[in-house]
Amino acid sequence: MAQVEWFDDLTIGMRFRSPEVQVTEADIKRFAAEFDPQPMHLDEEAAKKSLLKGLSGSGWHLCSIMMRMMVDGFMGRAASLGSPGVNEVRWLAPLRPGDDLLLDVEVMEARISRSRPETGIVTFKTTARNATGQALCEMVSPIMVGRRGDAGAGQGG
Amino acid sequence: MAQVEWFDDLTIGMRFRSPEVQVTEADIKRFAAEFDPQPMHLDEEAAKKSLLKGLSGSGWHLCSIMMRMMVDGFMGRAASLGSPGVNEVRWLAPLRPGDDLLLDVEVMEARISRSRPETGIVTFKTTARNATGQALCEMVSPIMVGRRGDAGAGQGG
Repeated sequence: MAQVEWFDDLTIGMRFRSPEVQVTEADIKRFAAEFDPQPMHLDEEAAKKSLLKGLSGSGWHLCSIMMRMMVDGFMGRAASLGSPGVNEVRWLAPLRPGDDLLLDVEVMEARISRSRPETGIVTFKTTARNATGQALCEMVSPIMVGRRGDAGAGQGG
Repeated sequence: MAQVEWFDDLTIGMRFRSPEVQVTEADIKRFAAEFDPQPMHLDEEAAKKSLLKGLSGSGWHLCSIMMRMMVDGFMGRAASLGSPGVNEVRWLAPLRPGDDLLLDVEVMEARISRSRPETGIVTFKTTARNATGQALCEMVSPIMVGRRGDAGAGQGG
């Protein structure tokens, strides 16, 4: 995934693709035990009887992995200042043990903040796919990104 | 928080409040190291220079904690069948080390699924607050819940 440093490096329609990350059964169960201890994420037998017909990762686990892939993929060097929220998350298909995930990221909108003109607001559509290309999760989220030359940006991560 | 078992136990306007959960600095850094390794979540000095002016937890960490509070609070016994996604997440104020969180949950909408009439779809508005009552995160999310008497519901978690 191309590295991006500043708001000025991003234009509407730009696309990025991340490297693959594998999610193991141990990862799925460890996250679920801490944050989403429902039987469909922890217990094979219960999971077989669930709507998803087998063990599946928590949707919040998938979102968290997507965040990590964004940071590793291109936000690590970007002047990211944080995010006010997420416009929409769609969990489209189950995250399964052993899935190799990749991320398709598209810049949907990029504008200067009205209240803070030294900051850009970039809206990304982020899609996590498994190795067959099936979309597991789509999210649309705005991220505040510093503008080139703003000394305050980028220091906060 | 009252325990809920079935769709039929939920009506629009019902409210629940969770017990408190404390989030430590170690929790914040451990989650960030795995899923959101941006300096504002990991490094005090960098965090002081960030927009949030001090170490703050990842928004995804807060969402994941809110999920756990939902499961412990009332979904543990409910016939929850999963969720198609989240309509909106707003991160309103930073999660700080040592924060005692509680959850206010309100039933915004409750209807029978058109495609699967043995299932209800309940839309919750969930607000995480710190000990001063300040809202840190609001989310609106639909959850599929089994109807009383449906033998298939509740087994999947």
